Amino acid sequence: MVDKKIGGAGLRGQVAGETALCTVGQEGSGLTYRGYDISDLADHAEFEEVAYLLQYGKLPNRSEYDNYLSRLKSKRCLPVELKEVLEKIPTNSHPMDVMRTGVSVLGNLEEEASFSEQDDHIERMVAALPGIICYWYQFCYHGRRIETDSDESSIGAHFLAMLTGKSVNPLFAKAMHASLILYAEHEFNASTFAARVCASTLSDIHSCVTAAIGTLRGPLHGGANEAAMAMIEKFRDPDDAEQSLMGMLARKEKIMGFGHAVYRESDPRNAVIKKWSDKLADEYGDRSLFEISQRCEEVMWREKKLFCNADFFHASAYHFMGIPTPLFTPIFVMSRVTGWTAHVKEQRANNRIIRPSAEYTGPNLQTYQPIEERD
Amino acid sequence: MVDKKIGGAGLRGQVAGETALCTVGQEGSGLTYRGYDISDLADHAEFEEVAYLLQYGKLPNRSEYDNYLSRLKSKRCLPVELKEVLEKIPTNSHPMDVMRTGVSVLGNLEEEASFSEQDDHIERMVAALPGIICYWYQFCYHGRRIETDSDESSIGAHFLAMLTGKSVNPLFAKAMHASLILYAEHEFNASTFAARVCASTLSDIHSCVTAAIGTLRGPLHGGANEAAMAMIEKFRDPDDAEQSLMGMLARKEKIMGFGHAVYRESDPRNAVIKKWSDKLADEYGDRSLFEISQRCEEVMWREKKLFCNADFFHASAYHFMGIPTPLFTPIFVMSRVTGWTAHVKEQRANNRIIRPSAEYTGPNLQTYQPIEERD
Repeated sequence: MVDKKIGGAGLRGQVAGETALCTVGQEGSGLTYRGYDISDLADHAEFEEVAYLLQYGKLPNRSEYDNYLSRLKSKRCLPVELKEVLEKIPTNSHPMDVMRTGVSVLGNLEEEASFSEQDDHIERMVAALPGIICYWYQFCYHGRRIETDSDESSIGAHFLAMLTGKSVNPLFAKAMHASLILYAEHEFNASTFAARVCASTLSDIHSCVTAAIGTLRGPLHGGANEAAMAMIEKFRDPDDAEQSLMGMLARKEKIMGFGHAVYRESDPRNAVIKKWSDKLADEYGDRSLFEISQRCEEVMWREKKLFCNADFFHASAYHFMGIPTPLFTPIFVMSRVTGWTAHVKEQRANNRIIRPSAEYTGPNLQTYQPIEERD
Repeated sequence: MVDKKIGGAGLRGQVAGETALCTVGQEGSGLTYRGYDISDLADHAEFEEVAYLLQYGKLPNRSEYDNYLSRLKSKRCLPVELKEVLEKIPTNSHPMDVMRTGVSVLGNLEEEASFSEQDDHIERMVAALPGIICYWYQFCYHGRRIETDSDESSIGAHFLAMLTGKSVNPLFAKAMHASLILYAEHEFNASTFAARVCASTLSDIHSCVTAAIGTLRGPLHGGANEAAMAMIEKFRDPDDAEQSLMGMLARKEKIMGFGHAVYRESDPRNAVIKKWSDKLADEYGDRSLFEISQRCEEVMWREKKLFCNADFFHASAYHFMGIPTPLFTPIFVMSRVTGWTAHVKEQRANNRIIRPSAEYTGPNLQTYQPIEERD
């Protein structure tokens, strides 16, 4: 068998399998989930409708949706042993590492014994992930052992309620629906592909999601909204932002939140989250971070023809809702878990182990020398 | 950009990157690590020499090796918090899930803050993995809180010492060197590829290894030695084995431990481990499981032209050393962690995010309907 050499590194532009879940960057519509345009979904749907669409293949009717929401609500409480483990994770831990351990331990306590259980475990993870991060965060940062249940019916509002301990501003609940919809699914991105590689050995669903979380954690993937926040919060005003950015560009520094591996002209998610950032700025009562972000967008386009990706206006939007920066990427997990697990189901339904080849660049055959004869 | 369609599913035969670590199935030598033939290494080297070779690119000289061994020995003790977490994992958990959580929690407690620390963390994992599985196993199965240090200098003997609480038969220590060498590295197999996908987002080393463990866990990948044991221990003698196998073949049942995705004629690791199984059978004082295994090999070749892969004679070899079957795949982890982490180093040294494309097979563009209008 002669191995076929692939041109681009990182498998860029190479078809590694089939999916019915998503199109990215196809003409006429930038991003679709099972055929629905992302703007259509983000403007009209609740996040849980989209989660259902990804998991079960269709938008739910009223009774399916009510049942789904009540199942999710019933699956929020964490096992005592999981809470005890979360209490042992130090305050200075990376929150993504907390998510990774949280899911791995959930798999220890509630193992997927057979693929026939997969939908139960998927719903359990979707329901429990906000509690995993909030329980650890409140315990470590404020010494509080919170309940991981709330009166809120949606995942976004439930997360905010656990974070603030207060009833949630309905505008914020709506913004969270849109944000979670935007982040839910994105074809064969690296974390999803890692989940499919794991699934292809017929491993369990918790192993797949654990692999995906660890992969999303990397700064080239999930960390961009946090990096964007770290940058824009340093700018005093739009003029300062422009001047600083010009300096960063001159020094060829990396600027996060712009451009994309697949999109060429724009990221269809940006228009949606930018509109929300604008609206939330008014609610927050101080528009300066939005205006700073807008100026960054202008400068990057003017100077480099680089557009904002999904992450850039998420930074200011989350900030206006009072979400601490270290929790930005964990929110990405709460959403993307729906995409990852839909891909795992798809991989399992038509599986072949994902096992590529490599081009060998190492030494020729050499002979083992006894240790005393070595340099 | 037009995506290139790949013929085989699962990226079979497709080059997904470069490596200087390993060749699999090349003419003249079935399996090499950095140019050394696997039989040469397994017959002459200790496992830690091979671990050093994979991690640092050359076989160590005497002083390098002595320093390396003493560093490994000094890195065996587990943090208290990790032991407390291991005690919370139920007895009926899958041992691979214990390994996955163990490494994830190690990453919470000892985070890789920068890639300049990678070699320290790799050595730490190589040194600590036997303790992670043995601590949990002894606590859950026997209620004992063991020390995760021992007088044994090699990883294989250290593992056996923690398992039995006794000093280790020198023949077993030698057999473990050979076994761990055989399992150490195997190019772009699924678990290694998962580690590289994770590494390609510039994530931390614990995330990469966690992803790899979860991927190795699948029955199409790491679980074959356990499955082989489950089969052969049911056979009374060679004739019963032959009769039963013929029945299984007639019923088209899956028989684990035979054939390989890359090798066509034989698996070069089989000759080595078969020789060890033969020797260990004498030491054990009852050769029947070896003879049963040999008969299986004959029948599978005669009937199906299928050869034993690395896993098949590992089952009897481990059994003769008194290793409980559920710990077979964790031993694979203790060894393969050296290959995984060498690949992570290689990916980091010349990185591009691994982000393939997919062929879309889903519905055309459709319009969101309000929930009350849905079927």
